[in-house]
Amino acid sequence: SHEADPINGNVIAKEIRQEIRQDVFAFQQRCGRFPGLAVLLIGERKDSQTYVRMKQKACDEVGITSSTHLFSDRVDEETILDCINDLNHDSSVDGILVQLPLPSHLNEKLIIASCSKTKDVDGLHPANVGQVLLEGSNAGFVPCTPRGCIELIKRSGCSIEGKHAVVLGRSNIVGKPVSLLLQAENATVTMCHSRTIDLPSIVRSADIVVAAIGKPNFVKGDWIKPGATVIDVGINVVDDPTRKCGYRLVGDVDFNEVRNVAGALTPVPGGVGPMTIAMLLSNTLKSAEASVKRQTKAKHAC
Amino acid sequence: SHEADPINGNVIAKEIRQEIRQDVFAFQQRCGRFPGLAVLLIGERKDSQTYVRMKQKACDEVGITSSTHLFSDRVDEETILDCINDLNHDSSVDGILVQLPLPSHLNEKLIIASCSKTKDVDGLHPANVGQVLLEGSNAGFVPCTPRGCIELIKRSGCSIEGKHAVVLGRSNIVGKPVSLLLQAENATVTMCHSRTIDLPSIVRSADIVVAAIGKPNFVKGDWIKPGATVIDVGINVVDDPTRKCGYRLVGDVDFNEVRNVAGALTPVPGGVGPMTIAMLLSNTLKSAEASVKRQTKAKHAC
Ligand SMILES: NC(=O)C1=CN([C@@H]2O[C@H](COP(=O)(O)OP(=O)(O)OC[C@H]3O[C@@H](n4cnc5c(N)ncnc54)[C@H](OP(=O)(O)O)[C@@H]3O)[C@@H](O)[C@H]2O)C=CC1
Ligand SMILES: NC(=O)C1=CN([C@@H]2O[C@H](COP(=O)(O)OP(=O)(O)OC[C@H]3O[C@@H](n4cnc5c(N)ncnc54)[C@H](OP(=O)(O)O)[C@@H]3O)[C@@H](O)[C@H]2O)C=CC1
Repeated sequence: SHEADPINGNVIAKEIRQEIRQDVFAFQQRCGRFPGLAVLLIGERKDSQTYVRMKQKACDEVGITSSTHLFSDRVDEETILDCINDLNHDSSVDGILVQLPLPSHLNEKLIIASCSKTKDVDGLHPANVGQVLLEGSNAGFVPCTPRGCIELIKRSGCSIEGKHAVVLGRSNIVGKPVSLLLQAENATVTMCHSRTIDLPSIVRSADIVVAAIGKPNFVKGDWIKPGATVIDVGINVVDDPTRKCGYRLVGDVDFNEVRNVAGALTPVPGGVGPMTIAMLLSNTLKSAEASVKRQTKAKHAC
Repeated sequence: SHEADPINGNVIAKEIRQEIRQDVFAFQQRCGRFPGLAVLLIGERKDSQTYVRMKQKACDEVGITSSTHLFSDRVDEETILDCINDLNHDSSVDGILVQLPLPSHLNEKLIIASCSKTKDVDGLHPANVGQVLLEGSNAGFVPCTPRGCIELIKRSGCSIEGKHAVVLGRSNIVGKPVSLLLQAENATVTMCHSRTIDLPSIVRSADIVVAAIGKPNFVKGDWIKPGATVIDVGINVVDDPTRKCGYRLVGDVDFNEVRNVAGALTPVPGGVGPMTIAMLLSNTLKSAEASVKRQTKAKHAC
């Protein structure tokens, strides 16, 4: 049977990074500085270290100045809040990103909410998430992963308007904002979760499927309407004794089954992941531009 | 054929008002004052005048002190913003409600956002609407009409968990918050709108239908799964020469057709309307209680 078009997140993200790079250098010409991103990395999780390294590398590549603030996994909340407060007031910092998850003794909600709304380039501040309900993709900072999903669908040539989209997962970080963004693009959206009854038959009615549940290979081939576009947000670690490291990453979608049915499908890794990082760069640039605009306005008001 | 159970919003709202009345008098005993609601009525629209009168009457009945601030339909924005600013600082006022729609020269968004978040008992302030995404019905003030819909469904004996709910309409005031509240109650929710393709067949798959589109008698009998619960939010004025006034109110649902198929159905008027007012009273009481709590905290901090 005909195989799904692979949606190559690496290639699409690279295109976007090139666009951003041009805009970053134009910004530097105009404003005399590069946009700046500050990353807080707390603890020693290997996966978090990898993600932070990838984000820094991506910043370097497009000309965004990045700095990383490292803390031991026993750091107290006060220290983190002080650091964020300093960054909130540092005019060379346009974006603040706290790498999640945090060690369990820290209050994640409080820490995220303590970042200035205007520097919340991850789009996780409650005020920014809430804006997605009100404004769709016109919101201040749209959370990076949901925005990445929409860009992937669009740039893969699938039109969203009038389609039936089914979203699996309803987290505030991924599932709910993806649903609202798809709706804002005029899809009819069904929001599913762990209490959904007969998930396979609901997914079967979808032209677009976004899976964000955190269960390896959960979505099966016979759940998919032939020709549907499938976006796999999941990043799951599974054992793999054939590999040196002993594990490998898989998505929430059973790739080998679904590729034979779907019209287009994102791989894991190399699908949504690189898009998330590209959107982080885009949000950081956007923040820098908004910051300059605010300064200009304030000057003119004097 | 078997007829749908009518969901009597008047009766259910009356029950809720009685519960609120008891809580209001308990509040007065504890705190030495009654909760207060301030209503701004701008212009001479007959329907707005009627709604404001109904809200005042409902306040009186449960012991909430209400005051109405009347303005001509040519009032300038400054005057309205000044009035709201005064009310924001008036400690006897727990709730501020601006009756909508406003005359077209006034900036509705700006005016609503100028009400203190902590007094926004209509739940229309962007920060409060956004909270519904993050917190469901635990949000600060849940918008009154969406909250009324959920209460109606629950008090009519229909359980929401695991059901497929289809919401027609995606306004920030009704459609989107209803969808998120139904999801928070563990329904699987499909969000529809004017760009939805083949609406009838989507509605046919619903156990719960909420119609909030503003089109008289739009939802037909053969769109409804036998036994479904149907909540009609629409309030539409249609000509009726058989009446003295020359018009009558109808919902978005063709009541006469749907009553023969649905398991339960709200009438218009007498369905969602009275619930909206009951939720306004509930939010005002909630605001008064939160205000006293904040004062007590502030005192203890000294
Ligand atoms: N590519 C990237 O850059 C990113 C990838 N991710 C990955 O995406 C996935 C989801 O992340 P996140 O949203 O934070 O996860 P959460 O754990 O916060 O949410 C998971 C959601 O999936 C739902 N769910 C769980 N089991 C089932 C099931 N059997 N059927 C249907 N729904 C189910 C849950 O439902 P309920 O609410 O009922 O519990 C919940 O809403 C993870 O694998 C994560 O690693 C996340 C962020 C970025
Ligand atoms: N009972 C009460 O207390 C209240 C009642 N109401 C009533 O509820 C109704 C809705 O109010 P509100 O949400 O403010 O209205 P809006 O006009 O803001 O929104 C209407 C929504 O309906 C959608 N829609 C329009 N036509 C169709 C169609 N043919 N098929 C599917 N969807 C359609 C629109 O879609 P799109 O976004 O694509 O344009 C839009 O999302 C009105 O009748 C209003 O009077 C409102 C508030 C309180």
